[in-house]
Amino acid sequence: MKILFYKPEIADASHWLALFARELPSAEIRVWAPGDTHAADYAVLWRPPPELFAGREHLRAIFLLGAGVDALLALERRRPGTLPPGVPIVRLEDTGMADQMTEYALHAALRYQRRFDEYDLAQRACTVSGAGAPWQALEPHPRASFPIGVLGLGALGAHVASALAAFGFPVRGYSRSAKTIKGVATFAGRDTLPAFLDGLKLLVNLLPSTPETDGILNRETFSHLARGAYLVNLARGTHLVEPDLIEALDNGRLAAATLDVFAQEPLAQDHPFWRMPRVTITPHISALTLPEPAAVQIARKIEALARGEAIGGIVDPQRGY
Amino acid sequence: MKILFYKPEIADASHWLALFARELPSAEIRVWAPGDTHAADYAVLWRPPPELFAGREHLRAIFLLGAGVDALLALERRRPGTLPPGVPIVRLEDTGMADQMTEYALHAALRYQRRFDEYDLAQRACTVSGAGAPWQALEPHPRASFPIGVLGLGALGAHVASALAAFGFPVRGYSRSAKTIKGVATFAGRDTLPAFLDGLKLLVNLLPSTPETDGILNRETFSHLARGAYLVNLARGTHLVEPDLIEALDNGRLAAATLDVFAQEPLAQDHPFWRMPRVTITPHISALTLPEPAAVQIARKIEALARGEAIGGIVDPQRGY
Repeated sequence: MKILFYKPEIADASHWLALFARELPSAEIRVWAPGDTHAADYAVLWRPPPELFAGREHLRAIFLLGAGVDALLALERRRPGTLPPGVPIVRLEDTGMADQMTEYALHAALRYQRRFDEYDLAQRACTVSGAGAPWQALEPHPRASFPIGVLGLGALGAHVASALAAFGFPVRGYSRSAKTIKGVATFAGRDTLPAFLDGLKLLVNLLPSTPETDGILNRETFSHLARGAYLVNLARGTHLVEPDLIEALDNGRLAAATLDVFAQEPLAQDHPFWRMPRVTITPHISALTLPEPAAVQIARKIEALARGEAIGGIVDPQRGY
Repeated sequence: MKILFYKPEIADASHWLALFARELPSAEIRVWAPGDTHAADYAVLWRPPPELFAGREHLRAIFLLGAGVDALLALERRRPGTLPPGVPIVRLEDTGMADQMTEYALHAALRYQRRFDEYDLAQRACTVSGAGAPWQALEPHPRASFPIGVLGLGALGAHVASALAAFGFPVRGYSRSAKTIKGVATFAGRDTLPAFLDGLKLLVNLLPSTPETDGILNRETFSHLARGAYLVNLARGTHLVEPDLIEALDNGRLAAATLDVFAQEPLAQDHPFWRMPRVTITPHISALTLPEPAAVQIARKIEALARGEAIGGIVDPQRGY
């Protein structure tokens, strides 16, 4: 069995190769490089160039080293015929990502509910100006009147919504198809979006990126939130209409935003988000792919396919996730 | 029934007086002012001057508008005979304070575990210098190898320890007398302090301030923590030896600290803590006394005393809490 590996953002793949060698001792695994057209049964990859797929109709599956399939499907839309027809694409199912997303979302929720962002700005103003900083208590938002909405109730969104509710926040969840989550008021279908958004103090985005959801974080969406609400985008930069966010922060519709994802990554050094005091940015780290559990999950799925068994995580290209 | 009220940090006590009037319709409640030596049955107060107690041997109880009795007992130590002998002192029992402390502690724990403090510094450096900011993922501390220790297992500490453990952090708790808390490894007595501290990544202080605990956050204590550990002080400024903290941050023993309390409050404008990038300060807001539940709790206790019943929260002056 031959496996191609490709993950361009890491300089040294040896840790990954060692994990696969341990989990699939009889497999031959190699890092794909331009010009490599030798035979392969499986591909394990992230952000591949189109050339990787040339003549790869015989792959038995393509495994993604992440949960989002949007970049791969966008490649196929831009250059139809890039992906080998009929080869299943398998996205990573939860390998600690849901826990990481929950840590990130709960941290942001507590930060805004207790107004730690404003205390930070006060302390920072003192540092920058050299002038005195205010020693002043701010009324926290009572947890019970701080409703949080989670857009997207896949494995990640459902876990985040559930944990926020368990901590005592009022939580609503929105998805395309109906879901039931303990302690969460769920809304399904685009018609319910205004009711879902109505009066939310915090909106957390964990939708998959599809032509249908791109641009969903826009002026119209923000207009349904409570005045002075907060936004946390953990999904994809394409979900956000950037000028609409800047406008909403300017006119007070939104109080602040935390963004982990951007239309262009890395975020350009001259992008205004770096310097807006009410915007907190992190470099796409809300949920990192952990090599150990990811390699184990993919290895077990390769073995299952070899035995002719069904596996989870196969992408529906029409649905887009 | 006559009640004295005194809470110097608020300009207008009318909201408090209205709450007590609602809860105890037959009581006469007045704000104490210098020179007022008229009769009173109960005192409800915070940070009183010694004169308030002159000739007050007939008070049936003194109710504190907070959980910490240290300032009142320190007043008595400095000027013995200030407090009317034999009058019970009753501290506020949990009225939402434990929930607030948990929000604060969990926010700080997630901030340090996921290194959001470092991402903030990176973004801030960009703002200040105008130079480019690094777009770089930092390895998070895995939750399982981020042991948190909670000093003090009273109503607040026990609640915080329990919530941190429920969220999945490994948690230890330290108190003077033995306690049992589900999911928390507990240590009792000063002899166990080094074992409790050994290798902790985060130390959260919620001890009462007594002559025995003051100064407990010192060089010797820090030396038992993991290198690059974090400190969160939510109890009293007197617990912390400030030069030892500054030294520990300088030499890398501690990576960062979040302080809500200070030896002198408000913190002096020229205090170095305002300007240390690894020190986060908040103005003693980790748990605010909420008027509504506090007034209701005190009113019910006054009624219980009037009926000759026992009440909770009576301070043991020898023990100091």
